[in-house]
Amino acid sequence: MEYNYKKLSDLQTRINRLNHLKEVAFWDQATHMSEKGLNARSEAIAELSQIIHELECDPNNKKIIFDAENEDLSDTERANLVEIKRKFEITEVIPKELLKEKHLAASLCEHGWRKQRFNNDWKSFLENFKKVVTHSREEAKILSQKFKVSPYEALMDKYEPHLTEMFVDDLFGEIKSWLPNLLAKVVTKQANEPVIVTEGLFEIEKQKQLGLEAMEVLGFDFKAGRLDESIHPFCGGTPEDVRITTRYKNTEFLPALMGTIHETGHARYEQNLPSSLLDQPVGQARSMSIHESQSLFFEKHIGGHPRFIERIHPKILSNFGKQPATHLNNLKRLILKVKPSFIRVDADEITYPAHIILRYEIEKGLINGDVEAEDIPQLWDEKMEELLGISTKGEFCDGPMQDVHWPEGLFGYFPCYTLGALYAAQWKAMIQLEHSNFDDIVGKENLNLIFHWLDENIWKNASIKSTDKLTTDASHGSTLNVDHFKNHLETRYLSEF
Amino acid sequence: MEYNYKKLSDLQTRINRLNHLKEVAFWDQATHMSEKGLNARSEAIAELSQIIHELECDPNNKKIIFDAENEDLSDTERANLVEIKRKFEITEVIPKELLKEKHLAASLCEHGWRKQRFNNDWKSFLENFKKVVTHSREEAKILSQKFKVSPYEALMDKYEPHLTEMFVDDLFGEIKSWLPNLLAKVVTKQANEPVIVTEGLFEIEKQKQLGLEAMEVLGFDFKAGRLDESIHPFCGGTPEDVRITTRYKNTEFLPALMGTIHETGHARYEQNLPSSLLDQPVGQARSMSIHESQSLFFEKHIGGHPRFIERIHPKILSNFGKQPATHLNNLKRLILKVKPSFIRVDADEITYPAHIILRYEIEKGLINGDVEAEDIPQLWDEKMEELLGISTKGEFCDGPMQDVHWPEGLFGYFPCYTLGALYAAQWKAMIQLEHSNFDDIVGKENLNLIFHWLDENIWKNASIKSTDKLTTDASHGSTLNVDHFKNHLETRYLSEF
Repeated sequence: MEYNYKKLSDLQTRINRLNHLKEVAFWDQATHMSEKGLNARSEAIAELSQIIHELECDPNNKKIIFDAENEDLSDTERANLVEIKRKFEITEVIPKELLKEKHLAASLCEHGWRKQRFNNDWKSFLENFKKVVTHSREEAKILSQKFKVSPYEALMDKYEPHLTEMFVDDLFGEIKSWLPNLLAKVVTKQANEPVIVTEGLFEIEKQKQLGLEAMEVLGFDFKAGRLDESIHPFCGGTPEDVRITTRYKNTEFLPALMGTIHETGHARYEQNLPSSLLDQPVGQARSMSIHESQSLFFEKHIGGHPRFIERIHPKILSNFGKQPATHLNNLKRLILKVKPSFIRVDADEITYPAHIILRYEIEKGLINGDVEAEDIPQLWDEKMEELLGISTKGEFCDGPMQDVHWPEGLFGYFPCYTLGALYAAQWKAMIQLEHSNFDDIVGKENLNLIFHWLDENIWKNASIKSTDKLTTDASHGSTLNVDHFKNHLETRYLSEF
Repeated sequence: MEYNYKKLSDLQTRINRLNHLKEVAFWDQATHMSEKGLNARSEAIAELSQIIHELECDPNNKKIIFDAENEDLSDTERANLVEIKRKFEITEVIPKELLKEKHLAASLCEHGWRKQRFNNDWKSFLENFKKVVTHSREEAKILSQKFKVSPYEALMDKYEPHLTEMFVDDLFGEIKSWLPNLLAKVVTKQANEPVIVTEGLFEIEKQKQLGLEAMEVLGFDFKAGRLDESIHPFCGGTPEDVRITTRYKNTEFLPALMGTIHETGHARYEQNLPSSLLDQPVGQARSMSIHESQSLFFEKHIGGHPRFIERIHPKILSNFGKQPATHLNNLKRLILKVKPSFIRVDADEITYPAHIILRYEIEKGLINGDVEAEDIPQLWDEKMEELLGISTKGEFCDGPMQDVHWPEGLFGYFPCYTLGALYAAQWKAMIQLEHSNFDDIVGKENLNLIFHWLDENIWKNASIKSTDKLTTDASHGSTLNVDHFKNHLETRYLSEF
């Protein structure tokens, strides 16, 4: 291996090892940590983060990267170098002071938000939130000047490299053009299809058992990961030992099951990244959109597929017994039930993009300076009326205060959710070209036919290809096309299953 | 705060934060980690350990410590400085290369040992083990020259500062003088006291419930810690969030219960260290002997006390129902059952010291150069015959290969177990001077009377006092006296309860 490249790659290995410990600590914090352990945990993570930051920003890296660029590298090494350079440039340009202040403001805002949201107290929230916005704008401005993109693009770039507003505007504009109409049609259709809600207590232990059985069917490697509980479900840990979580309510079992299947999608991506590259940036998952495309593929195109419900129906019955609500047809209807509502995380597949488009439009304006924090509630109400036809006036808690992303200063992340849904629908369409019996596969055949496609086209590529290249290679030359998503929704929600 | 002292204390805070992450990773490894996560975990911990080691051994520390010694410090600060200096001197004097080789040899030996023990394969074990001994002797020699103590003392010092062979020889010599005789008496007495072994399945969930109930009675702070399962029970985590573990067999419930109570003793010590000093060496537990004195106090003087069994008997019945074995008197006899056997960790209170004395005598010789690794099996057999009257010839797996300590190169640790038992008996005797109704307190009164004594005399002192000072302050001027242990054993095992 060439001298300078090796130096960089060794450094990445070290950073990766330290990040491993951060991931364990984060997972533990969400799943097992005791109440009184929080302060020490926060301090410990901050201490390690600082060490990692110093390794990442070492001013010597600049020259080493420059020299490595002139070395004789393999394609994968060169792709790795691109990722290393990108990370270095993003990290190095932000002053340490700003990073610290931003982190402090976000901590304060997020901490206050927990209570303020409960009290529907927008005014107190706004006070802290404005500081978060100020620091994020400052960060966006610095990155924007460095990378010659808009401030908002500079923030999106952290989650989806090279994503542009024009690209997202186009895609989301198309969705907006047909979504309200599709929604109306589906709601009308479903008005004639009564569903029975699940009744009685669904033992948590049995729900967990069912979740594990579904993970097994979906190929989760239990020697390289596990399932636990947390308030906010997530996929964490490391590729060698992926930690997914879900949350249970004993009054219904579908949300935890579908949540588990969603996280299983994230997990299989992580578990199938190329093992020889796991300690390098190029061996990591491509981006948040692509990650979300995997979780949504598993949740919507496998787990929520009416034929998959057939497949695991015996397991559902053996765990919970027969009741009107667990009849097969009723379960299918329950899973596909569409209803405009306030809360993004509870939204169905059709209204979900509306929640994202709304947030995208607001936060884009906020970071680019066209929107001020105090304008958000009014914009929120207008857009909820426009997209979903529901009024959220005065409902700050279940309106602009509902997500943790803004109090934490995570601007630029939201679009990835819906991009993920679009990519997932496109993968589904592409797999169908190869396997016209896709529905049968999901219903009763060997799911490995599907997983094999995902492995070949997504998982094993890690970050070796850009998102664009990954997409066109997987799509016979096509870029991301909203039609696949539209077709999927129309097929699933307007025809009979 | 004085300038140089503050520098040292800030460094300790940083080191403590990084150690926090190591502890989380260790706990996770023992309780939750997936099979395929081991390599990455080991590498991550090694990486962080190296960073911590570099901070600890920074050559600048020497001068800062020297300057701090001339600063105007409070008593606690001065005690902290003593601990900092001690740690620095121990760490700094060992060449990094030796540390690495020692660690490698131990890893290799421990890894091989798992299978070799299973196969009773002493010969293959010996090959790896000899390298572990060589490196440990080398380390001991360096420390011995630096601190003017014997090589074995230099190793004991890591677990119990300033412990001398003469001190241990005296104590253990006394125990040897009466132990075989006492053992014979107890075995004869118990031959006339039939016990019924527990029967049937004891559901793990109910055992866990019982353990949690016992922890509650014993004052464990569930906002600052938790109970989990692991193959080898331990107390880990951090003082703010103490993680204890136990292991369950569904054929009997007493081992897990007593194990949980044992770890609760460790945990309460950790949970009650002075909160303002937790990030400094002076705020940490005094030593391994004192730590073990807390776990053994909880296990033997509270949990295993016949009156405590009375106290929690209703909880036992409500969890497992009535059966001949769960009759109160039978449970008391089960817990106090004495029987010489091969395995240290399964040994009763009377034979346990014999296992320790045997190991102490062998490893002392081994490190000081009077014994070679190949001599161990023969010495083991002789001492087992002498102390417990049982033959272990050819039983390498349940003989010198039974513990993980030697393959891991943890020489000097074993004596702490029995020192802990001696200290625990002494604390019990001291508490009885203040509370002559000790047995009643354990049986039905407010246990806080006992915990208060432990807090005042042990817990809140952390490492502010030396072990000697801690002992004499807690014992009206007396040093450690074996008679308390002897009295305890005679009272408990030779009289009627």
